[in-house]
Amino acid sequence: MGNAKLVEVVQSKLKLRNTMAREFLAEFLGTFILIAFGTASVAQSVLTNKANGDFFSINWGWGMGVTLGVLVSGGVSGGHINPAVTVAMAVWGKHPWQKVPLYIVGQYLGAFIASAVVYGVYLNALDGFEAERTLATAGIWATYPGAITTKNGTVITDYLSSGNGMGDQVVGTMLLLLCVCAITDARNMEVPKGLVPLLVGLTVLNIGVCFGFNCGYAINPARDLAPRIFTLIAGWGSDTFSAATVEGIAWWWVPVVGPHIGAILGVTLYEVFVALHHPETQEFTLPQVTPHQEPGSTITHKF
Amino acid sequence: MGNAKLVEVVQSKLKLRNTMAREFLAEFLGTFILIAFGTASVAQSVLTNKANGDFFSINWGWGMGVTLGVLVSGGVSGGHINPAVTVAMAVWGKHPWQKVPLYIVGQYLGAFIASAVVYGVYLNALDGFEAERTLATAGIWATYPGAITTKNGTVITDYLSSGNGMGDQVVGTMLLLLCVCAITDARNMEVPKGLVPLLVGLTVLNIGVCFGFNCGYAINPARDLAPRIFTLIAGWGSDTFSAATVEGIAWWWVPVVGPHIGAILGVTLYEVFVALHHPETQEFTLPQVTPHQEPGSTITHKF
Amino acid sequence: MGNAKLVEVVQSKLKLRNTMAREFLAEFLGTFILIAFGTASVAQSVLTNKANGDFFSINWGWGMGVTLGVLVSGGVSGGHINPAVTVAMAVWGKHPWQKVPLYIVGQYLGAFIASAVVYGVYLNALDGFEAERTLATAGIWATYPGAITTKNGTVITDYLSSGNGMGDQVVGTMLLLLCVCAITDARNMEVPKGLVPLLVGLTVLNIGVCFGFNCGYAINPARDLAPRIFTLIAGWGSDTFSAATVEGIAWWWVPVVGPHIGAILGVTLYEVFVALHHPETQEFTLPQVTPHQEPGSTITHKF
Amino acid sequence: MGNAKLVEVVQSKLKLRNTMAREFLAEFLGTFILIAFGTASVAQSVLTNKANGDFFSINWGWGMGVTLGVLVSGGVSGGHINPAVTVAMAVWGKHPWQKVPLYIVGQYLGAFIASAVVYGVYLNALDGFEAERTLATAGIWATYPGAITTKNGTVITDYLSSGNGMGDQVVGTMLLLLCVCAITDARNMEVPKGLVPLLVGLTVLNIGVCFGFNCGYAINPARDLAPRIFTLIAGWGSDTFSAATVEGIAWWWVPVVGPHIGAILGVTLYEVFVALHHPETQEFTLPQVTPHQEPGSTITHKF
Repeated sequence: MGNAKLVEVVQSKLKLRNTMAREFLAEFLGTFILIAFGTASVAQSVLTNKANGDFFSINWGWGMGVTLGVLVSGGVSGGHINPAVTVAMAVWGKHPWQKVPLYIVGQYLGAFIASAVVYGVYLNALDGFEAERTLATAGIWATYPGAITTKNGTVITDYLSSGNGMGDQVVGTMLLLLCVCAITDARNMEVPKGLVPLLVGLTVLNIGVCFGFNCGYAINPARDLAPRIFTLIAGWGSDTFSAATVEGIAWWWVPVVGPHIGAILGVTLYEVFVALHHPETQEFTLPQVTPHQEPGSTITHKF
Repeated sequence: MGNAKLVEVVQSKLKLRNTMAREFLAEFLGTFILIAFGTASVAQSVLTNKANGDFFSINWGWGMGVTLGVLVSGGVSGGHINPAVTVAMAVWGKHPWQKVPLYIVGQYLGAFIASAVVYGVYLNALDGFEAERTLATAGIWATYPGAITTKNGTVITDYLSSGNGMGDQVVGTMLLLLCVCAITDARNMEVPKGLVPLLVGLTVLNIGVCFGFNCGYAINPARDLAPRIFTLIAGWGSDTFSAATVEGIAWWWVPVVGPHIGAILGVTLYEVFVALHHPETQEFTLPQVTPHQEPGSTITHKF
Repeated sequence: MGNAKLVEVVQSKLKLRNTMAREFLAEFLGTFILIAFGTASVAQSVLTNKANGDFFSINWGWGMGVTLGVLVSGGVSGGHINPAVTVAMAVWGKHPWQKVPLYIVGQYLGAFIASAVVYGVYLNALDGFEAERTLATAGIWATYPGAITTKNGTVITDYLSSGNGMGDQVVGTMLLLLCVCAITDARNMEVPKGLVPLLVGLTVLNIGVCFGFNCGYAINPARDLAPRIFTLIAGWGSDTFSAATVEGIAWWWVPVVGPHIGAILGVTLYEVFVALHHPETQEFTLPQVTPHQEPGSTITHKF
Repeated sequence: MGNAKLVEVVQSKLKLRNTMAREFLAEFLGTFILIAFGTASVAQSVLTNKANGDFFSINWGWGMGVTLGVLVSGGVSGGHINPAVTVAMAVWGKHPWQKVPLYIVGQYLGAFIASAVVYGVYLNALDGFEAERTLATAGIWATYPGAITTKNGTVITDYLSSGNGMGDQVVGTMLLLLCVCAITDARNMEVPKGLVPLLVGLTVLNIGVCFGFNCGYAINPARDLAPRIFTLIAGWGSDTFSAATVEGIAWWWVPVVGPHIGAILGVTLYEVFVALHHPETQEFTLPQVTPHQEPGSTITHKF
């Protein structure tokens, strides 16, 4: 194993001892994973006219993309991979403000590079699917307000107002943070750390299943704005930023602002309804995995 | 981190030391989560004519809605989020009767507020989908007995009798409680607390996959009646309560009464078939996660 | 809590101290759960002409039916809920032969009662779907060899030979037991007891996704024969037993005999390829959940 | 239990004490499980013209096939079941080079035997589906570059270049290894050993959901080449190896070479972005499952 020796030397040379640099790399890589999987799942559905994917498979793509993104980064940076999460945590004193800018830069950068990689993987398919780039394929990367078909079958191209779209983003991200706070609260259902990524991913899957129709559940400013900038540069042009709601107001800023509001609201609701009221001295029901103690009995534990 | 200081002061002011108030808030929030996800998953399928959702995605919406509702509330209130669960537990002496009213009020209230939020999120879409409110969209919130298509393709608008509908609700809720009792029984498969929400959610998902056709698997009075009252008020009118089974008997009370009967039956069956007979002195097979003891060997443990 | 007192008295009266009686009840209830969910998932697909279910949702119905059946019975009886499992374990000395008959009776009885309950829940729907009972709906309960459509669209009603059908059942059940042995082997991936039901259920889900087409993946004699006897009695008549393969040989005995052969083969393969060769003194890698010890280090442990 | 005695004697005779022989058998059996499930899931979709399966069910077939393959082999050999994993681990000094050949032989052999078993199970169906063997059914076993339908509905038979196909395989396998490294890194999200197979399987499921369209996500040389050789021999002829990309370059070697490059790249990226920088002295947040210690507090632990 001569290469094991070599590996050790290289490792030692490359090793970062700076915590913030490590966290930056983790947020970059975690968000890269999220956006690589998520946008590619949309690509697979769009470019095959739904033959190899549909809205439900897209929900899995984004949901498991979150799971894998958190698995890759969680142990180092906490696995935010979403600027709305980072800011909301800082607002509630759960994350230091001085780390916020670096986290956000890592997230946007990871999302941008992932957009380019997915573009490369599906380049032949894009060229085959349409002769010129249109918003039909721009929707692989960023979200746009959708059309609606009435129950009689008439298609209405625009139906979503900016207010309703903003409400959609606020509610979706609020639900995300409410659930994330519960999943990571050691005094609620005592979810083991190794199960957190799966449950957070299933939360996002379910937001897609339930709140995905209006405007594609961005619920993450980096997930939406960075890929949008990529499409602007990569050939889709300024339509990517001028696409508008039914009142003619540009759409792009809604999935940036809405998630930030919703995330703060979500953490606040969880604090006000649940976390604030945890007793300082908590009665635990012993978990069922340690049979050498008495399941069902309670012990008193001081936090 | 000046805001961390501020947060602490606010926390201290808002903190509830009363257990019942905490449990009320938890049941409210947990049921809110359940109904917000569940009804929105139906909205996404109905309002897109099944383009962005179908019965299976609805099953995921409700199933993971339960998972997330229990994750949010379980550590505080036990995560009933269903009056049928609360009453059945009280009947079997597993939940104090004096807490029952407050739990139920929290559950109905959470379901009602969630109905309103989903209405807000899908308001533009509702207006786009149909010019006037009809039962087609009322079914987003409450359950109604369905139509059936014969194997030759003829549609029969009404086929379900009140008796069959009641049986459906009793059996569905009975299966739910049988499984919930098993999942939370420390002397059965020793499910860790953090895995309980996922397994309970998968139970509800499966009830939807298997027992969802007749009348939409309410199996929870708060899940059905509170959203129905919301639609009555919000513009769907009295049809929401006068919709009837094939004999012309009103439907609305069946998913209220049936689940209460089924839940008590389910707990009773689990007790009679399994729980009552657990030996007082139980032989444990050591779980495989603690390798410093001998897996496969047994220890004697007194409950 | 006067009823808590009453509950205690009733409990004490009803308590069974006989282990075999407890195991019988557990196998009965576990198989009841499996068949209630499984057959109902087929009913939901058949009776709605695939509008509220399809082959994938049926795979979930059976898979999660197994998960829930094992959750209900596993801690008491081991959660076989399948005579092929019980016999194969006895053949390999992992289950006492004298318990085999009672296990099997419990399994067949639970499957039969579940068949009747699902018949009751879907009675109005059955009457609405077809005027007279035919094999189209008998397939809700028992399995039959299917038809095939050629790639040019011609339907061939019969294509499966008895030999191929038998091979299908042997391979399917062999794979089931191979995986079950691995999942419950404390010296392989150290799956915690509480996660076993989910993984076993996902195994069955995957057998349905991969080996479900030829003849409906019975892979469990009680799952197939007991519901078949129910349909014979409940109005579908002798066609349920005379339905045949392409050579005209009756089908019903294949999903009874095949699974028994496949199960023994599966346990044998797992023993020969993996279990037999576990070293008596095993080096453990410490699991990552107990950080007060050194992850990555190894301890020596004597079995 | 006379047979328990017999079993013991047989066990003792058959027992292998050689570690490499045990690992060979485990890799053989694990890869057999993976390919048996995976190819059969494609068979079920192809041979039923998508009636009993579609691309999403195929994604589940391969994903859970990986989960079950790792469950069967992981505790003995590490559960590589993929030559690209084995070689990449050796390159990084995490797996001894002298074991690489035996691992790879076991993997290719297991994949070949599984191909033959699935052929046997679906033999009647193959004969029913098409009169002569064509690439339509060869695609059950090995991957081929697909066709594309433009958004106007025109089918373009060939669109994928060798370069794009190679990029697809490199990116897909890179993402696989990035995630596998994170899942098994004791210093990241501390995933318990028993949960590893499920998370690795969900990773592969998601690669299928997101990167499956271009050329069927082989991401494993043994998964693609061994079944291809089987089809060459079993009646599909030399088309299986002469099938080509849009430039007319043979396809078969791309899913062999690409995954090896991608796997090394994936491990390298994980090392460079995450693993190299783990501090030697790591602060642990106590996991929430052990309530007899203080959750939220930190202990200092030396690796």
